[in-house]
Amino acid sequence: MTRLWNDPASFADDMVDGFVRANTRWVRRVAGGVSRSTRSPEPEVALVIGGGSGHYPAFGGLVGAGLAHGAAMGNLFASPSAHQVEGVIRASEQGRGALLSFGNYAGDVLHFGAAQEAVRADGIDCRTVTVTDDIFSAPPAEAGRRRGIAGDLTVFKAAGAAAAQGYGIDDVERVAIAANARTRSMGVAFTGCTLPGAEEPLFTVPEGKMSVGLGIHGEPGIDITDIPSADGLAELFVQHLLDPAEVPEGASVRGGRVVPILNGLGSVKNEELFVVFARIADLLEEAGLTLVDPQVGEFCTSFDMAGASLTLFWVDDELERLWLAPADTPAFRTGSMDTSALEAVTADGEDEAEAELPPSSEESRQAARLISGALAAVRELIGEQAAELGRIDAIAGDGDHGIGMQRGTVAAAEAAAALAQAGAGAESLLVRCGDAWSDRAGGTSGALWGLILRTVGTHLGDTEAPTAPAVAAGVSAARDAVMDYGKAKVGDKTMVDALVPFADTLAEQVEAGEGLATAWQRAASAAARAAEATADLMPGMGRARSHGAKSLGTPDPGAVSLALIAERVHAVLAAR
Amino acid sequence: MTRLWNDPASFADDMVDGFVRANTRWVRRVAGGVSRSTRSPEPEVALVIGGGSGHYPAFGGLVGAGLAHGAAMGNLFASPSAHQVEGVIRASEQGRGALLSFGNYAGDVLHFGAAQEAVRADGIDCRTVTVTDDIFSAPPAEAGRRRGIAGDLTVFKAAGAAAAQGYGIDDVERVAIAANARTRSMGVAFTGCTLPGAEEPLFTVPEGKMSVGLGIHGEPGIDITDIPSADGLAELFVQHLLDPAEVPEGASVRGGRVVPILNGLGSVKNEELFVVFARIADLLEEAGLTLVDPQVGEFCTSFDMAGASLTLFWVDDELERLWLAPADTPAFRTGSMDTSALEAVTADGEDEAEAELPPSSEESRQAARLISGALAAVRELIGEQAAELGRIDAIAGDGDHGIGMQRGTVAAAEAAAALAQAGAGAESLLVRCGDAWSDRAGGTSGALWGLILRTVGTHLGDTEAPTAPAVAAGVSAARDAVMDYGKAKVGDKTMVDALVPFADTLAEQVEAGEGLATAWQRAASAAARAAEATADLMPGMGRARSHGAKSLGTPDPGAVSLALIAERVHAVLAAR
Repeated sequence: MTRLWNDPASFADDMVDGFVRANTRWVRRVAGGVSRSTRSPEPEVALVIGGGSGHYPAFGGLVGAGLAHGAAMGNLFASPSAHQVEGVIRASEQGRGALLSFGNYAGDVLHFGAAQEAVRADGIDCRTVTVTDDIFSAPPAEAGRRRGIAGDLTVFKAAGAAAAQGYGIDDVERVAIAANARTRSMGVAFTGCTLPGAEEPLFTVPEGKMSVGLGIHGEPGIDITDIPSADGLAELFVQHLLDPAEVPEGASVRGGRVVPILNGLGSVKNEELFVVFARIADLLEEAGLTLVDPQVGEFCTSFDMAGASLTLFWVDDELERLWLAPADTPAFRTGSMDTSALEAVTADGEDEAEAELPPSSEESRQAARLISGALAAVRELIGEQAAELGRIDAIAGDGDHGIGMQRGTVAAAEAAAALAQAGAGAESLLVRCGDAWSDRAGGTSGALWGLILRTVGTHLGDTEAPTAPAVAAGVSAARDAVMDYGKAKVGDKTMVDALVPFADTLAEQVEAGEGLATAWQRAASAAARAAEATADLMPGMGRARSHGAKSLGTPDPGAVSLALIAERVHAVLAAR
Repeated sequence: MTRLWNDPASFADDMVDGFVRANTRWVRRVAGGVSRSTRSPEPEVALVIGGGSGHYPAFGGLVGAGLAHGAAMGNLFASPSAHQVEGVIRASEQGRGALLSFGNYAGDVLHFGAAQEAVRADGIDCRTVTVTDDIFSAPPAEAGRRRGIAGDLTVFKAAGAAAAQGYGIDDVERVAIAANARTRSMGVAFTGCTLPGAEEPLFTVPEGKMSVGLGIHGEPGIDITDIPSADGLAELFVQHLLDPAEVPEGASVRGGRVVPILNGLGSVKNEELFVVFARIADLLEEAGLTLVDPQVGEFCTSFDMAGASLTLFWVDDELERLWLAPADTPAFRTGSMDTSALEAVTADGEDEAEAELPPSSEESRQAARLISGALAAVRELIGEQAAELGRIDAIAGDGDHGIGMQRGTVAAAEAAAALAQAGAGAESLLVRCGDAWSDRAGGTSGALWGLILRTVGTHLGDTEAPTAPAVAAGVSAARDAVMDYGKAKVGDKTMVDALVPFADTLAEQVEAGEGLATAWQRAASAAARAAEATADLMPGMGRARSHGAKSLGTPDPGAVSLALIAERVHAVLAAR
């Protein structure tokens, strides 16, 4: 249980503040996360890592000489926004390109991907290697769809050491790919974890039982068993990770060399991990492996979740050399790092000045005030529904949908009120509210709702009187943008299942001559029916499919949110 | 809650095994704990630390270049035995003397003290500096009676760095004393912790409440309050630690320099600590202090206890330089430690061969078999009573009495069976069973029972027929040895309250001509009455007195154990 916070909504921000205060020797705060507070005399390829907060020392704790150059730090268990990732890349890049690396979660893939596109447009050579070490998140034949857990560390370490040794971007990318291909992990959990301010755990494991393969955000595992002895757990780990199907290509058990990483998820203590490790070491050696620089401790946590994972990093000569190279970060230090040659980097602050508002017409400002009212109503709606949305999401997902939507709608409504007051037109208001939503919410839904608001905004403009056809065209464009961005189609059990009938019905009704309120009402009804129908679908995308996830019977939370919001906005339009 | 173990009785041993397997770069296993696996080219004063297990990274995690040379690792929450401490000193000492440093707990003081005497007898210059940082364990005027908590680290680090820089034993001792004098800590807890295999937590804090000043083994605190916000906790910590009475002599708030150490006790996670630290940093700076190299994380834990402590280390120039000096250990690494000059030390194993048994008479062997039977009966008795003894102890103490007695009696009974089988006489059997008891049990009671068995043994010999006067004389000598060793007297609410009437009655009855069985029965009755009467006493020694400890009404667990054992041994004598 998490007990110490000031305001749950600002927890991640407050945490980054304290983290930076305690670790100024290594990190400085930049827009979107942290970047090194030192720089090597020679420029290096920049390794930018990141993900949701709540997994310390992942990710900020791994920023420093010999390891990462920057970490984008999202909200709790929520991906950083594209805007955040971009900020960290720009603060960390030194003219030799950037490698982005992070666990393979849909939200992170979307946001890091968008940030990569943005910095590439400015000529930065940016590459991405996602980490896919969790063997229970997809079968071996679909290893590219696996999630990333504590094995993140091996990929980051290999890439960071390569960058420190002067490798170019091609070679840094190559060793990151090689490290990921040679890393396998499996995890178990005994309890869920409770986010700051939450009344209930985000997910649970039956009392006295162990969930095998449970993900670090509570993604369903493959089995529930009794809690074994320490030796029994060691045997379970080693049996699965030495399964011939999980021995990486080019590696072999007999005569092989592995770095074992026994990771505690939060409430399993070092003493317990050492008892388990004693048996793991015996089993690996009995199988013919040589242990290289074992690691026992916390490397990727889930708040106070009780659980553990074992990672095997099957090193070859180059990867072993990179693994053993010195590193000096807040949470991972190894070897003798000569830090005397490092130069201090002055903090550059978050100095993006609030941009001036472009000129707007009275009609557009009036529409902006209406939109601000609608966003206030949506904020209230989501405040009421957040717990239920989180509950639905936790059945097959990571349970953060409700809290992410709450953060996003609060940010958007706050921004809207200020912008409407300042005389923003409809486009300026929607575009900036979209940025505020995705920055604050993080996660996949934050990215998609940011995209929807921005896309609709650009179709309304700041000077024209927003018409029903303009709104319908904007919503249709948003539908296309969301499908393009998330690569989801109807039937994949995502928000798209509700968005497509909503956008199509709205366009049809407006084209048939209906007024906006009536057209919107019919579109909202179509979205509600479609959201309800997602209960009959199995998830098709949005995150790596979990073996045995039993989500049939539960509607998709993203589709439900969209339908609820559409209905609430109708109430505002009808009351005009 | 602790979930992963094989056999709770062997947990500490299994943990040390795994710890050493994972950290061979830094440590090797030696009799009694761990010692460095490397040695500097020039001999250094040896810093030997230690204490009960369950506080990782204290104490084994702090052994390595620039910090400790060895750590005696006791059983869970139980002091290492004198024999263990002595083993670690002998494995670590390099001809320049040894400094022993550990938290100020009665059991540790007894055992490290006895080990110091033993090695001094061999000409090793051995000194001791106990750590007394916990401001709520005694008022400022009695600072020397305070307990040691996470502030251990500052004393160890200063002394270890001084040793690495070639300081002699006088100066290593001097900086350790100076560091302790300039270190203050306070802790809070939200929950207790559960030892491996225990059904119930060792102690509890009311749900949703915070205990202020609770010790790391559950020693009572000074207050129970609601759980504050993160900022509120920061304010509480800083308010108490900047109280003028707690600012060390020679230090000052305005213009002073402090190393802040924010320590998590087990289940409070890094994210929460960072949120608290952000405010601590502000408050300390607002007060006029400069922060030096802040530390946020786990430095001295209590298994899965939820809680935190703040330590302030008020550095002067020399202490700051020593604090910032490089160190390279399993759990504490700082600066650039040049490890290339270190030489590997080969593990010397636990190669104490089982010493040959001296010649014995048939009468003495017969007595040894009887004693072995009595120890088997005592083992059974304590197995039945361990939970109740732990419960009594937890009311005012650290709750480990039952489990310590259980470990000790199991070890003694096992050793006795093997020795009786091998033909040991009474003295050899009792002396070796005493060693086995104190080694396995650890803690104060382990030390005292080991002493009792050894003392009685030396009065029986291996060749004489053990007579009632010899037994009575041995018990009287054991009474004197215990009182001398523990500095306790009748009325201090310790085992001595039962041992004195037991020994005195036995001597009187034997002198009056009674047979051993009858004399023993009357002595056991006197012990039982005296043990019961300890319920009316307030504790006078045995551990630092806790403010507000309400132990009136509960008998002393050590006195109760002694009375129960005396009674059970009578049953064996009577059945002869």
